[in-house]
Amino acid sequence: MEKSALEQLNQAVQAALREARATVLAKMGTTLTVAEKTSRRDLVTNVDHSNEDFLVAQIRRLDPQAHILAEEGRGDRVTTMAGHVWIVDPIDGTMNFVHQRNHFAMMIGYYVDGQPTLGYIYDVMGERLYAGGPRVGVTVNGRPLKAPENLDLTQGLFGASAPLLIENRYQMQAIVAQSLGPRITGSAGIQISQVLTGELIAYCSYLRPWDFAAGRVLAESLGLVMTQVDGTPVNMLSSGAVLVATQRASRTILAIGK
Amino acid sequence: MEKSALEQLNQAVQAALREARATVLAKMGTTLTVAEKTSRRDLVTNVDHSNEDFLVAQIRRLDPQAHILAEEGRGDRVTTMAGHVWIVDPIDGTMNFVHQRNHFAMMIGYYVDGQPTLGYIYDVMGERLYAGGPRVGVTVNGRPLKAPENLDLTQGLFGASAPLLIENRYQMQAIVAQSLGPRITGSAGIQISQVLTGELIAYCSYLRPWDFAAGRVLAESLGLVMTQVDGTPVNMLSSGAVLVATQRASRTILAIGK
Repeated sequence: MEKSALEQLNQAVQAALREARATVLAKMGTTLTVAEKTSRRDLVTNVDHSNEDFLVAQIRRLDPQAHILAEEGRGDRVTTMAGHVWIVDPIDGTMNFVHQRNHFAMMIGYYVDGQPTLGYIYDVMGERLYAGGPRVGVTVNGRPLKAPENLDLTQGLFGASAPLLIENRYQMQAIVAQSLGPRITGSAGIQISQVLTGELIAYCSYLRPWDFAAGRVLAESLGLVMTQVDGTPVNMLSSGAVLVATQRASRTILAIGK
Repeated sequence: MEKSALEQLNQAVQAALREARATVLAKMGTTLTVAEKTSRRDLVTNVDHSNEDFLVAQIRRLDPQAHILAEEGRGDRVTTMAGHVWIVDPIDGTMNFVHQRNHFAMMIGYYVDGQPTLGYIYDVMGERLYAGGPRVGVTVNGRPLKAPENLDLTQGLFGASAPLLIENRYQMQAIVAQSLGPRITGSAGIQISQVLTGELIAYCSYLRPWDFAAGRVLAESLGLVMTQVDGTPVNMLSSGAVLVATQRASRTILAIGK
């Protein structure tokens, strides 16, 4: 794709997300319909569904070649990263959305033949839209976002996942002990966005593709590293324990986790 | 104190805090001077010091009878809760202040002969000032704050402290397992304010007096309960493992922790 077309697409996706945000905010003033998916901690609401419908329709309008993998199943059955693949999480952190009305995100990742191309994390209540990719650069609310300093694990706060930390999977307690302390927010989107800004040195959690697809594009565009916590590459079509970190912190964490 | 005088004092403290916020925001644009206190995770900055100076001076101006217990030692040596006691934390969550420029709070608690009288938690970057007490009511940015629903532990998110959770002190992992999940923010002020709004069902951490003095006034004014995690009353002049929760969640947690 020509760079000008990519930049136009980038602006169009941001406009769609801003429209989605306005709709979500309006619906937050009404009664939510909440259902459990796999457990009492895995929720879905009418807003997840309606927002996914909206985002999927917008993507189809913008990119007729789109193959769309979307959390709530409104997209396509995607089995390969060939072609134009869009990965959508309409509400990341639904538990927070329901119980806190805060600390949740919308996320979209766009891959062309497997290459990270565009990514979007929208912190809805914080009103911060992280957007862009390796060719168009990364912005927050339209202003360029500077790459975070390449600090080591000891120099930053660590974004943790509660199950991995409590069960001490992948030496998570030793990793946290080296950091300046753990933070748990309950939204991959929010915590990955904090790695982008340097508020966190790293974030590690068991994630599904729509939890990390957007973040990978943005993180790699800023010189950050996203891998599985065993050091192997992430697979965009399967779930895994994913680590996103500065280059230095990534090396340190992978060495501890071994 | 007459109610009208108390309301006047309440407004004056809020005005002082808003002035303090403007100064802190201005100083965040300059280079911070950061020092370690007891460990690499226990920080103090020039802004903690200057803001404590400011708040202590404001309190002395408003209440010439004030005995002031302040985190960084700019107040008085307070050994009794008799008379007018003000307990001040100029920057709660200094680690977040330094590394995130977000998720920190100013806090002031005012006790008269040991009675919780006025409390203030200022989420500086969220720009939310929680203020008031049992006689004047509780407001956020001047608007009345409704008491949160009296939900049980299973129905809400749990504000945790990393050390208590990792070391499983007071059966913390069993408590978290009953909740909808833990959240760790690294600021007592921010997390207690989230209990006030119902975003968290409870918060438990090892705290010093300036970490919980303000929160106790506000929490009790809204029908929430603050005790030590063994069920005994908090002591305003000593540190301890403190639990603030809805009445129902408090009963459940204290039963598990036994």
